Amino acid sequence: MSATREPRTPYYLIDKSRLLANMQKIDRVREQSGAKALLALKCFATWSVFDLMREHMDGTTSSSLNEVRLGRQRFGGETHAYSVAWADHEIDEAVSYADKIIFNSIQQLERFSGNASGIVRGLRLNPGISSSSFDLADPARPFSRLGEWDQEKVLPVMDKITGFMIHNNCENSDFGLFDRMLAQIEERFGELLKRAEWVSLGGGIHFTGDDYPIDEFCARLKAFSNKFDVQVYLEPGEASITKSTTLEVTVLDTLFNGKHLAVVDSSIEAHMLDLLIYREDAKIEPDQGDHEIMVCGKSCLAGDVFGTFRFPQPLKVGDRISVQDAAGYTMVKKNWFNGVAMPAIAIRELDGSIRTVREFGYDDYESSLS
Amino acid sequence: MSATREPRTPYYLIDKSRLLANMQKIDRVREQSGAKALLALKCFATWSVFDLMREHMDGTTSSSLNEVRLGRQRFGGETHAYSVAWADHEIDEAVSYADKIIFNSIQQLERFSGNASGIVRGLRLNPGISSSSFDLADPARPFSRLGEWDQEKVLPVMDKITGFMIHNNCENSDFGLFDRMLAQIEERFGELLKRAEWVSLGGGIHFTGDDYPIDEFCARLKAFSNKFDVQVYLEPGEASITKSTTLEVTVLDTLFNGKHLAVVDSSIEAHMLDLLIYREDAKIEPDQGDHEIMVCGKSCLAGDVFGTFRFPQPLKVGDRISVQDAAGYTMVKKNWFNGVAMPAIAIRELDGSIRTVREFGYDDYESSLS
Repeated sequence: MSATREPRTPYYLIDKSRLLANMQKIDRVREQSGAKALLALKCFATWSVFDLMREHMDGTTSSSLNEVRLGRQRFGGETHAYSVAWADHEIDEAVSYADKIIFNSIQQLERFSGNASGIVRGLRLNPGISSSSFDLADPARPFSRLGEWDQEKVLPVMDKITGFMIHNNCENSDFGLFDRMLAQIEERFGELLKRAEWVSLGGGIHFTGDDYPIDEFCARLKAFSNKFDVQVYLEPGEASITKSTTLEVTVLDTLFNGKHLAVVDSSIEAHMLDLLIYREDAKIEPDQGDHEIMVCGKSCLAGDVFGTFRFPQPLKVGDRISVQDAAGYTMVKKNWFNGVAMPAIAIRELDGSIRTVREFGYDDYESSLS
Repeated sequence: MSATREPRTPYYLIDKSRLLANMQKIDRVREQSGAKALLALKCFATWSVFDLMREHMDGTTSSSLNEVRLGRQRFGGETHAYSVAWADHEIDEAVSYADKIIFNSIQQLERFSGNASGIVRGLRLNPGISSSSFDLADPARPFSRLGEWDQEKVLPVMDKITGFMIHNNCENSDFGLFDRMLAQIEERFGELLKRAEWVSLGGGIHFTGDDYPIDEFCARLKAFSNKFDVQVYLEPGEASITKSTTLEVTVLDTLFNGKHLAVVDSSIEAHMLDLLIYREDAKIEPDQGDHEIMVCGKSCLAGDVFGTFRFPQPLKVGDRISVQDAAGYTMVKKNWFNGVAMPAIAIRELDGSIRTVREFGYDDYESSLS
């Protein structure tokens, strides 16, 4: 499965030096704020780079039995187990991998607190506010199933738990908004937070982004931690891996149908699904030049379009394109739509060499079905 | 991999007797119209039921190298190879599996007609009209890359091809609309059709649906075939497998957050992706009773909602729900989002017995990454 050559396109290319830049920011936040940082596996779970990440993060958090097992076995460190709902047949195995288990509802807590009596237990709280601009991804949307809302209902079960998870940020790069929402959380759930030993503030805080005010962020985390005397956890997903990875594709055909089009050997639905779900464009750099070209995927889907970008020359068959920012929520949800060749996974090591860690072939496609 | 018991939920359950009902309608259309029917693997490629399907269909059509190989090796019969764009390194292998290859553009035809000189070659035409109500899935959308539009450009390459594929229907259950669009195609591409030996009218015609006027449909196909003296092909995807399959799920938790909610052991994003992409609700039968309950998936996605349905009693943990019509574009694009347990695939045989043909476990999850 391992090779020293660069694979054939399409492939995801994880650049460890770019990953390291994020890790160094995470180190700084951990040191300056006292918060612990757990990788959110739902966003990124490519375990071949965990050797580097575990030097800079305290462990992982998860959203299913498969993820908590991967976190324990492939990452190590502190292993948080969360799931919107556990099944009876999953709970004992999940507990066996976890240091901490966070239940999504009081009913789940009460059902399984006995099974989890040997480890730290917590509950997800939903403050009813969020930074999401997408209703689809907004944990505070009306009738949200994500966490308990009512402090009065939670107080009676405080004997079963020692902390909370509150995840209401979503790609939030606005520190002011984070700060204001945290103040609302302090206000709304003060009685609970006073009784807690630890609080996870979840993911979705884009603190590794350019120009994020890290000092203010750390001071705010520290103030929160001191005010309630709690260990703070952060669960960075996208923030851990942002800008570390490209999807490398090759132009297979060019057309002119009122616009100049290029068809590449990939598909947004199969390989960068969130572009389709959230109706967003991919990023290509530098996106400059005289030639405006719509870059399309090769699936049958009419809307399989990466976006319209500028290039210095017309694209021609065989040209390589690097789709930027392709680490988060891509590899974890790639699929065999149309049987499009699945991207290999390659790593650019710190010395610049490229190592292919996974290639997918026909047998993988066939055995994805039966 | 094979077992005689029913698997643990979640699982897709393909009911061969319901599949057979579709196959019998396809038989009738083939017989009455003279058209040949090819399964569109992009919609459904669960090869364990191909033994039944190949008795009623002439072969398969495909949208990638992986699919054309699956069609040749697992289904047999006539094997059409189509792809929005072939890569240089794919073409010879694709040709080796195919009876017919259909190119998406004149440029691809000219690039590869030599490689494909030993088999029948065709070209995709785009008539600029479609039945799709979704821009995303509309092959006639502005700047569509799907097929050639200009008859004058195609005429000079007629020496390289003997037929055409025209796929502009999309879940079209309106025979009148099909008929009118076909008339427009006859008008627009008449000069090309006169020179063709075969024409594939693609998929998306919902002719196995209840109350579809099969006799009129067959007569129309026959008239088209006679007018241009062509062999007609149909490429039913959804029409082949409609209503044949359920996704079997179990309630893991219930909540009340202004609405009654039930969380099940599945996820629309991971297991019925089109519900999310097209913002549609699942179908549950009979959807009647005094209790209105929102059925939610167990992923972290706030919008992971199957829909709001009526039930005769409140749902409770452990209750089973059968999500209807779960065959098309589901198994072929399932994915490991959130590490949610991937549904097994089971078949209800004609004698009523249930056979599990594929289960997925942690090793599959871990090896989907690296």
